[in-house]
Amino acid sequence: MQKINNAGVCTPLGYSASSAAADIKGNQKGNHDLTLLYSEVPFQVAGVFTKNSIKAAPLKHAIKSLENNKEYSAIVVNSGNANASTGLHGLEAVDTIVKAFEDGLSTGEGSVLMSSTGTIGVKMPVDKVVGKVDQLIDELDDCNSDKFAKAIMTTDTVTKEFGVLVETDNGAYVVAGATKGAGMIAPHMATMLCYITTDALISAENLQTVLQNAVQPSFNSITVDNDMSTNDTVFLLANGMSGIIPEMEQFQEAVNYVSLELAKMIVKDGEGATKLVTINVKNAAEKEDAKKCAFAIANSPLVKTMFYGEDPNWGRLIATVGASGVKCVEEKIDMFFDDLAYVKNGIIIDEALEAKAAEIMKKPEISITIDLNMGTSEKTVYTCDFSKEYVSINADYRT
Amino acid sequence: MQKINNAGVCTPLGYSASSAAADIKGNQKGNHDLTLLYSEVPFQVAGVFTKNSIKAAPLKHAIKSLENNKEYSAIVVNSGNANASTGLHGLEAVDTIVKAFEDGLSTGEGSVLMSSTGTIGVKMPVDKVVGKVDQLIDELDDCNSDKFAKAIMTTDTVTKEFGVLVETDNGAYVVAGATKGAGMIAPHMATMLCYITTDALISAENLQTVLQNAVQPSFNSITVDNDMSTNDTVFLLANGMSGIIPEMEQFQEAVNYVSLELAKMIVKDGEGATKLVTINVKNAAEKEDAKKCAFAIANSPLVKTMFYGEDPNWGRLIATVGASGVKCVEEKIDMFFDDLAYVKNGIIIDEALEAKAAEIMKKPEISITIDLNMGTSEKTVYTCDFSKEYVSINADYRT
Repeated sequence: MQKINNAGVCTPLGYSASSAAADIKGNQKGNHDLTLLYSEVPFQVAGVFTKNSIKAAPLKHAIKSLENNKEYSAIVVNSGNANASTGLHGLEAVDTIVKAFEDGLSTGEGSVLMSSTGTIGVKMPVDKVVGKVDQLIDELDDCNSDKFAKAIMTTDTVTKEFGVLVETDNGAYVVAGATKGAGMIAPHMATMLCYITTDALISAENLQTVLQNAVQPSFNSITVDNDMSTNDTVFLLANGMSGIIPEMEQFQEAVNYVSLELAKMIVKDGEGATKLVTINVKNAAEKEDAKKCAFAIANSPLVKTMFYGEDPNWGRLIATVGASGVKCVEEKIDMFFDDLAYVKNGIIIDEALEAKAAEIMKKPEISITIDLNMGTSEKTVYTCDFSKEYVSINADYRT
Repeated sequence: MQKINNAGVCTPLGYSASSAAADIKGNQKGNHDLTLLYSEVPFQVAGVFTKNSIKAAPLKHAIKSLENNKEYSAIVVNSGNANASTGLHGLEAVDTIVKAFEDGLSTGEGSVLMSSTGTIGVKMPVDKVVGKVDQLIDELDDCNSDKFAKAIMTTDTVTKEFGVLVETDNGAYVVAGATKGAGMIAPHMATMLCYITTDALISAENLQTVLQNAVQPSFNSITVDNDMSTNDTVFLLANGMSGIIPEMEQFQEAVNYVSLELAKMIVKDGEGATKLVTINVKNAAEKEDAKKCAFAIANSPLVKTMFYGEDPNWGRLIATVGASGVKCVEEKIDMFFDDLAYVKNGIIIDEALEAKAAEIMKKPEISITIDLNMGTSEKTVYTCDFSKEYVSINADYRT
C-alpha cells in the first residue's frame, strides 16, 4: 500500500466532480459552495452519521434512503447552509434538489444523495441550488478532486485530501478521500463531512462494516472543541471499476489509513489551532476508562490553552486525569512528553527536566502519554491547542 | 433575612482575620498571599471538598482531621501554590505549617485547618509561610474581612463577599462568606475556595447537612471552563457567639442565599468573562437529563463564544441540546432568550425576532430557557462567555 501524491475523490477510476458558486449563504463573493461527485457506473455506498438527536434534513433523507437502497450515482454537497432545524421546508428542499440532479443526470429516482454544512436554522435557498444543476453536470471532470474538496469547506483554511494505491496479485485499486471540518469536531464526528471513494469491487454490506471499523480510531478519536454537529457524515463509495475484489483485511487497512490521515488533517486545521497534540492513555483499568481519560484531557480548555502557551505545566494534566473520573491512584501515575519521562509516581522526576519539556512544547506536533499503571487498556486521541483565534472565529462566524 | 452591605467572613461575632505578603510564588511583588481566619471561641465546621481523585495535601489533611474532630480555632489559607501533586513533601509541609499556627495561637493540637490555591506540582515554600506566623497572629482584627478575601485570590479580578442578617424571635445572627475562583470552575467546585462564617449556635452534624444541601444549587451549578481542581473546598464555620439556636429551615435558606450569591460572583468574574449567562432547562424527562443538557450548553465552547460574539445563533444551542444526549424530540423543543419566545417546536418562530434576540444578547446578564416538553424535571446552571482574554490568561498563567 502506498500513498498517492495529490490524490482526491476522483483518483479512483470512474469518478468525476464539479463545483459552482451558488451564493447559498448570501455573502459568498464568488466562492464555490456547491459541488457534485459522480460515478460513471453506480456505486455501492456505506454511511455513518452524527449521533446528535437533532439531525439535518439531508441526513434524514440519506438515512431513510439507505434503508432500502445501497446503489447510487452521485452525491451533491453544499456549504453555507446546514439545512438543520429547518422543519418541513428543509425536507422538501432536499427532495427538490435531489430530484433536479436525478433528472439532469437521467440516473433515475433514488440515485442521488445530499449533504450540507453551514449555518443551522436558516432556510435552504432551493432555487439557487437548482439553478446550478445543468452547469454542474456539464462541467463534471475527473480532474476536479480539488474543486470538490474546496467547495465543501466552511471555516477550514486548507483542503484535506489523501489517497493510497493498494497492490494485489490481480492488479491495483485506489482508496482516496476528501474531508472538511475545523470547529465543532468531537467524538461522533461533529461538523465534519468526509467522502472516501474506491474503485474496488465490494458489497454495500461489507463496505458498511469496514466504514464502521474505520471511524472509531479516526473520526471518533479526534476533538477540536467537544461539540457535535447536526450534519456529520462519512460516506464510503465503491464503484468496482478496477475489477479488483479486495482482500478484506487489506481493504480495511487502506480505509483505516485514509480515514486516520484525513481525521488528523481536521485536527491540524482545527479552528485557530497551532499544534497537533496526540494524547495516549496507557494501562487504564478498562477500555471505557482509557477513553474517558483521554477525551477529558483532549477537551480541557485549561490543557488546550496550556499547549497554546507552550507551557509544560504537567500539574494541569494530572488535575485533569483526576477530574476525568478515571480509576487512578495518584502515586501510580507516570507521564511522558514525547519520549521524555517527566512525571513518575505522581510527582515530577526532576525539576531540571522542565527546560527539556518546554522545548518539546514548542514543537508543532506533540505527544503526551499518561500511564495510569492500573490495567491494560489504552486509547489514543488527537486534539489541538486552543487559541485566541478560535474565539475570534467563533464569536464572529455563524456556524 | 436581609443583605448586609460590605459583609465578609469577620462580620459574624467573634471572627477576626489578618493577611501578609509571604512571596509564596516567588514573584508576588508584595501582594498578600497568606491569610489567617480566627475565632475567639472554637467553631464547629463542615467541609465539602473536590471530587477530583487527585487531591491537594491540605485537603488530605483536612479530610483526615475532620473524621475525628469538628471543633477548630483557625484556618490558614495561601494562594500562589496549590500544594498538590507534591508527594510526601506536601503532606509534611501542611503538618509543619499547621503546627506553627497551633503553637503561635496556643490553641492546641488539631485546632487549625489549611487550604491552598495556585500552581500544581510545585513544592510549598514552608519557611516563607512559617516566617509569617507571628505577624499574622499579631495583626488579627475583626475589620479584616477584605484582607482575607483579597489574599485568597489568584486570577480573580475582584474580591467576592456576601452576608445576610437573619432575624429571629430571640435575636439576630449573621451568615457571611468570602470565595475565590475564576478559572477551573465546574461542577464539583473546581479551583474554588469558599469560607462561610456564622455566629449561630449549631452542631457540626447539622452544619454538614446544611452545607451539602447548599452547594448543589450554587457551587455545583456553576461552570467557567468545565475543569475541576485538586483544591476545591467549601468550609462552613459556626462559633455560636450570637447565642441563637437557628430554626433549621431558615438557616438553610440563609446559607443557600449566601452560597448562591458567592457562586454567581465567581461566574461573573470567570476568566475573561464579559457576561453572566443563566441556562434553564425545563420539562426534561428526568432529573439527570435536565442536568446533562444544562451543563452541555453551559460548557460548549461554541455556545460560550457565541455569547461573547453577542450573536443570537439559536442553531448552536439546539445542536448542543441534541449533542448532549438528553432525551428530546426536535419538534417539541421551545427556546426563550430572557422572556422572548424565539423557537417553537424546533424551529424559529419568526425570522424578524432575530433583531430582538440580538438586543438581548448585548446585555451583561442573559437568561436562556430550553423547554424540552418531555417531562417535569428542571435544572438551572450559571455560566459565562468565552473570550480571547480567557485564552490569554490561561496560555500565560501557571495555574
